[in-house]
Amino acid sequence: MSKRKIVLAFSGGLDTSYALVSLREQGWEVLTANIDTGGLHSGEADAVRKRAEELGSARHFVIDAREELYSRVITYAIKANYLRNGGYPSCVGAERLVQAEKVVQAALDNGADAVAHGSTGAGADHVRYDSVIRALAPQLEIITPIRDERLTREYERDYLLERGFQTPDKITTYSINEGLIGTTIGGKETYGSWDYLPEDAWTYTRSIADAPDDGVELILGFDKGEVVSASTVDGQPIEGTGADAPNYAILRALNVLAAEHGVGRGIHMGSTMVGNLARVGFEAPGMLTLIAAHRELERLVLSNRQQATKAQLGTAYGDLLHEAVYYDPILDDYRAFLDSSQRRVTGDVRIKLIKGNVIPLGSRSPYSLLDAATRQGVVYGYGSSLWTGDQARAFAHMYAIPGAIAKNVE
Amino acid sequence: MSKRKIVLAFSGGLDTSYALVSLREQGWEVLTANIDTGGLHSGEADAVRKRAEELGSARHFVIDAREELYSRVITYAIKANYLRNGGYPSCVGAERLVQAEKVVQAALDNGADAVAHGSTGAGADHVRYDSVIRALAPQLEIITPIRDERLTREYERDYLLERGFQTPDKITTYSINEGLIGTTIGGKETYGSWDYLPEDAWTYTRSIADAPDDGVELILGFDKGEVVSASTVDGQPIEGTGADAPNYAILRALNVLAAEHGVGRGIHMGSTMVGNLARVGFEAPGMLTLIAAHRELERLVLSNRQQATKAQLGTAYGDLLHEAVYYDPILDDYRAFLDSSQRRVTGDVRIKLIKGNVIPLGSRSPYSLLDAATRQGVVYGYGSSLWTGDQARAFAHMYAIPGAIAKNVE
Amino acid sequence: MSKRKIVLAFSGGLDTSYALVSLREQGWEVLTANIDTGGLHSGEADAVRKRAEELGSARHFVIDAREELYSRVITYAIKANYLRNGGYPSCVGAERLVQAEKVVQAALDNGADAVAHGSTGAGADHVRYDSVIRALAPQLEIITPIRDERLTREYERDYLLERGFQTPDKITTYSINEGLIGTTIGGKETYGSWDYLPEDAWTYTRSIADAPDDGVELILGFDKGEVVSASTVDGQPIEGTGADAPNYAILRALNVLAAEHGVGRGIHMGSTMVGNLARVGFEAPGMLTLIAAHRELERLVLSNRQQATKAQLGTAYGDLLHEAVYYDPILDDYRAFLDSSQRRVTGDVRIKLIKGNVIPLGSRSPYSLLDAATRQGVVYGYGSSLWTGDQARAFAHMYAIPGAIAKNVE
Amino acid sequence: MSKRKIVLAFSGGLDTSYALVSLREQGWEVLTANIDTGGLHSGEADAVRKRAEELGSARHFVIDAREELYSRVITYAIKANYLRNGGYPSCVGAERLVQAEKVVQAALDNGADAVAHGSTGAGADHVRYDSVIRALAPQLEIITPIRDERLTREYERDYLLERGFQTPDKITTYSINEGLIGTTIGGKETYGSWDYLPEDAWTYTRSIADAPDDGVELILGFDKGEVVSASTVDGQPIEGTGADAPNYAILRALNVLAAEHGVGRGIHMGSTMVGNLARVGFEAPGMLTLIAAHRELERLVLSNRQQATKAQLGTAYGDLLHEAVYYDPILDDYRAFLDSSQRRVTGDVRIKLIKGNVIPLGSRSPYSLLDAATRQGVVYGYGSSLWTGDQARAFAHMYAIPGAIAKNVE
Repeated sequence: MSKRKIVLAFSGGLDTSYALVSLREQGWEVLTANIDTGGLHSGEADAVRKRAEELGSARHFVIDAREELYSRVITYAIKANYLRNGGYPSCVGAERLVQAEKVVQAALDNGADAVAHGSTGAGADHVRYDSVIRALAPQLEIITPIRDERLTREYERDYLLERGFQTPDKITTYSINEGLIGTTIGGKETYGSWDYLPEDAWTYTRSIADAPDDGVELILGFDKGEVVSASTVDGQPIEGTGADAPNYAILRALNVLAAEHGVGRGIHMGSTMVGNLARVGFEAPGMLTLIAAHRELERLVLSNRQQATKAQLGTAYGDLLHEAVYYDPILDDYRAFLDSSQRRVTGDVRIKLIKGNVIPLGSRSPYSLLDAATRQGVVYGYGSSLWTGDQARAFAHMYAIPGAIAKNVE
Repeated sequence: MSKRKIVLAFSGGLDTSYALVSLREQGWEVLTANIDTGGLHSGEADAVRKRAEELGSARHFVIDAREELYSRVITYAIKANYLRNGGYPSCVGAERLVQAEKVVQAALDNGADAVAHGSTGAGADHVRYDSVIRALAPQLEIITPIRDERLTREYERDYLLERGFQTPDKITTYSINEGLIGTTIGGKETYGSWDYLPEDAWTYTRSIADAPDDGVELILGFDKGEVVSASTVDGQPIEGTGADAPNYAILRALNVLAAEHGVGRGIHMGSTMVGNLARVGFEAPGMLTLIAAHRELERLVLSNRQQATKAQLGTAYGDLLHEAVYYDPILDDYRAFLDSSQRRVTGDVRIKLIKGNVIPLGSRSPYSLLDAATRQGVVYGYGSSLWTGDQARAFAHMYAIPGAIAKNVE
Repeated sequence: MSKRKIVLAFSGGLDTSYALVSLREQGWEVLTANIDTGGLHSGEADAVRKRAEELGSARHFVIDAREELYSRVITYAIKANYLRNGGYPSCVGAERLVQAEKVVQAALDNGADAVAHGSTGAGADHVRYDSVIRALAPQLEIITPIRDERLTREYERDYLLERGFQTPDKITTYSINEGLIGTTIGGKETYGSWDYLPEDAWTYTRSIADAPDDGVELILGFDKGEVVSASTVDGQPIEGTGADAPNYAILRALNVLAAEHGVGRGIHMGSTMVGNLARVGFEAPGMLTLIAAHRELERLVLSNRQQATKAQLGTAYGDLLHEAVYYDPILDDYRAFLDSSQRRVTGDVRIKLIKGNVIPLGSRSPYSLLDAATRQGVVYGYGSSLWTGDQARAFAHMYAIPGAIAKNVE
Repeated sequence: MSKRKIVLAFSGGLDTSYALVSLREQGWEVLTANIDTGGLHSGEADAVRKRAEELGSARHFVIDAREELYSRVITYAIKANYLRNGGYPSCVGAERLVQAEKVVQAALDNGADAVAHGSTGAGADHVRYDSVIRALAPQLEIITPIRDERLTREYERDYLLERGFQTPDKITTYSINEGLIGTTIGGKETYGSWDYLPEDAWTYTRSIADAPDDGVELILGFDKGEVVSASTVDGQPIEGTGADAPNYAILRALNVLAAEHGVGRGIHMGSTMVGNLARVGFEAPGMLTLIAAHRELERLVLSNRQQATKAQLGTAYGDLLHEAVYYDPILDDYRAFLDSSQRRVTGDVRIKLIKGNVIPLGSRSPYSLLDAATRQGVVYGYGSSLWTGDQARAFAHMYAIPGAIAKNVE
């Protein structure tokens, strides 16, 4: 009788290394899938493959999910200006959706009976994985040894060492998760609320102190809410953003460039759907830059009502993705709203990156409400050919009436 | 027959100087009221009084509205984390409410028949003034020469010069409005959307380039959402915030201190209730610092639902004040919600001001949700004595069901 | 020199009769446009034409706006389940949009210099008309004699009588506005808040007392949120809804049928954008029936999140239309959301109309969430093959944690 | 060694009868608590006590929770006008909160080690109970035999019969839950979505056919949003609502009176937090009457903004209670908002109950916005001394500007 087959989401870290070996020992034929969601070190795919083979993977897949992550998830995060709890460009939650989908697809393509992931039961990731697997392929068994048995990292290391496998390295102080959207850094200081991460905990952003004094000025071009160009003030595309670059090239390039200017660090603090308050450092220079620029352009072309309603719906939308509510049909409705709202979000934004700051210097658009008002006769601060003094006075008179009635009701 | 009496809101600038003289010439007995809402140069009250007398004020009042502005308006702006269009701590809109109330009170106290203000009809200020006057004292006549006759500043200057009065100075490039909440700067570059204000347009904040390299670290203490202490890391109150200081002392001190560190500049762009898109520079270092700190503390003590709903209601609340909807009874309901939400917003926040950045380093509170979870057994990243592996697994299973049903509906 | 040309929105009533004659006397060439938005008596077009000609119309147009009103406005009111202040299917506000657009179009098509309408300045209609005219054709002059001169109906009647014109009839007790969406009835009792309209004030709905004891049962079919069939329980299309009927035929037929069963009466009370509280009776049997049925189907196929968010956005959408905010681009975004939400709102609803009640008896849909859950193993009230007792228990355990932490924070 | 002690929430039905006996057999000392939340048959307390004793209860408590349910839960449901999914006055969800609190209190008062309830794992009730128990007394063990072992009602009956106990009756077609808020009826027809409950399934409301032809007219008096009187048009208090009556007397009396007029029936359909779509019949004549009257009074005294925001927050508030999110601190914030909004909701509402309809005929209040406007000069439909024709015209001109700019942006 042939072995039962399982696909394991495999990163090469301690948890998934343990899972690979122990699943094998339990009699599974283990296939490993390494999903690339664009961590800066995603060039390390070969090392991960080597590790998988060494630990006994029957077959190893490297799946590049970056374009899909960008087009399906990141573009909407920018359209929504989504920042979890007002500050954090939700890095992990949205990535897990795409990762889990890819693992399920690999399982279906290879006739597997089950999927496995290395999530613990302590955070939200296990809920995210399971939510995708159960919705897309309820027939697949889900195996999650770390969660189910509540294993410690020490136990896992010993288990591997006993079997003659090197453990990746000593157990690190910080748990790091890298992706295109950003990198998260958890450990030690983040387990409490008072201490800040030390300088050496950050992985690729410069400190404000070390960032260049002069900063850099850029022009970001948007088309219907999506960034389509990033250039210097002289009009030169910034490095890595040429015509043949993939759809996520500008984000990737800004992750590098803005990081040099001290942009992108933060500590997120917020409750998870399992009830605890999480605190975790993050580096997301590209997303923070893009959202700041995008929002500035929206101020130029959207009505106040659009901005206020977008802020509310965009928060609801991003929160659902963060909380693994991936298949409520309202997500499509939110995206329809967001897409509609971006019809006029086309134009350029001048930004300056300097010493940790992202400063929108100016913006322009064929749909500029400021230009439209000027063309029709409004000049701010000076008056307007659109109305006379008497009309202004009458408007103030009428505008005051509901308040006056309400004030004098008693 | 005695002259009819009018109270004029008087700042000493060109518009109100013109108004004072021309009202007098029309036969009014003009009383002038100079309302102090805390601009940094509010020490200049004597100069304004002198000017009023020189121009023929029958009686001049200096009315200190700072404590009231702070307690009635600013504290709620901070509780609401209100930033207009996501970035601007609405400086002018809220001040006008208090100013207009004071002018009305002066008119009633002095048996005046009318009130006057120097607003143009181009912006929103005239609507704000009239909204207050009509609600509080509909019997008072409202006289607004600049708005009604659409006068230019050149006309006003010539009018005063012809009568032998010095005009305040040459007509300035930028129109500046100072107050406790912030200073606004409009003119030239802000009439379009592409250009940024030049260095010399800013009035009291340092540029990021000139800010000290090292920054400064502070501890801000909050009690039920209101800031009650601002101290150095050694526990020394920062300058100007001693025990006898007025209620707005910390805001005023942060306006000075954060400004030195390049914090507080921005350009606001947003539609007004008269329909045009306004763009105006602002300096609000104290408010931006306090809101950043307050928001960080909220992340520690409020549920996600509280934060999301507060963000939405706080925006609605602030927008109404900005748009002169001062007397809709919903404002009281919003304040009741905000006050209730602040029951637990008590504790300290460590912030670093450096090179234009306000960085929350950490926070602590007797109502910390992180500490509460830890006490009850949750340890983020490690697991929890609150649930077993099986319970975590079952939760993920159940959590996935609504999505799975919705996904497989077709 | 040729006369200046004006297009007058003409209903044949006193206000527009006066306007036609007085505009003519002021030297205008007056063209009249009678816009049919589907009042039950819209067959009276000929009488209106005759009246226009008698009063001196240079040219009279009858413009059938029913299909457009239905497809552009009414379908979205149903998708949104819009009821102003929770009870009133905003009859007049949305009609004015389409009427004013048609008048503007007629003015442009006929090279007119101006448009006129007979609105008073007391309500909101004049704001609605002007909002459309100014947005679509700011070059057209707007002439509104009744509003500008605050004429009384007595004055208008005398004016016409003096010139030898019969006035339509004696000045009626109630001011009635008829349209496809509904009929409004204002006057006497509705000027206060305590009295109800007497039986003879209602125009075409039966009283509950006079409605048949047995009621009638119908099946309404929906496709993506739009009603596509109305039949008896035997599957016969109800009268007037055959295959060749216009798009609004079902609404029109239900206006007749539901009215017979005492459905559709109400009194709306709500503030207008000019600040006063309006109270007005209405009869809208068709809309109330369709919204009740549509909402029932949504309960079967939409997630709770969709229903709650739709309710909120639908209210905001309908309120903007009611308040003449016709051109804020957010309207398109709302419609995009609504359209997306209706993807699965396909199926049938059984309703009973009886003695003023609209009772949804049952519903069915290929997208039924109830059926989907059942297919996947859930049986309400009995348990489910989707989870075990232990999983249910664990879910309750985990679900309680955030509350337990929050409760025990102090 | 003394037996371990458990308190069982006991209704006398099959599930809790089984639980009582089986817990006893497992060695527990079982105390039974019968919580009265105001079902019409709550006079049956003695029968329940007898049953408990017969089945071996060591001690039986009857706990009257009606006043507390009313003051803490029902008053806010009315202030919020809460109807789940737009139609259902959430009967069960809120009752469970109070019931579970009482059971926990009994357990703590009697030194019990555990609490038990008879919930199945199929619905939401078990989550509600556990949410309360875990938050208030995490040290108590929770025993839920029906849920954990997924027992069928047939098994439970046999178990009891084998031990010589009469089962309450044959297993009924409908599962009925009675309380002050309403009665729910589930079974057979409600397991699908197409069929309606037959006449004999309803428990105490009359059919529309059997309701009296004439209906009845009432005057309901409110004070700050709470109903304080219910009288005939002659001013006589309706039966059961005298001065010495308990706080819930009017609701109880309306449950009787409105039921006679065919008011109160409905079928609720909505998703639960365990993901399935529930459909259940309900009878809630009192709540539907009170909410209709309360809402009418709000239309008279609240601003549009208050009504729209209340609708949204009230839905969110009620949904959280329905979904057992009892301890999120936002509930207090919602209640603060609701209480504030009710400051002026004082006055009378005339309603007519007839043939299933609740018709608000009129309303009056010292805080009437209609009267306030009239006193200040507004007369709807006729014009106003608050503004001139020119002011009305100018207002329409200005009001149109933002739309005109937005429309002509392209």
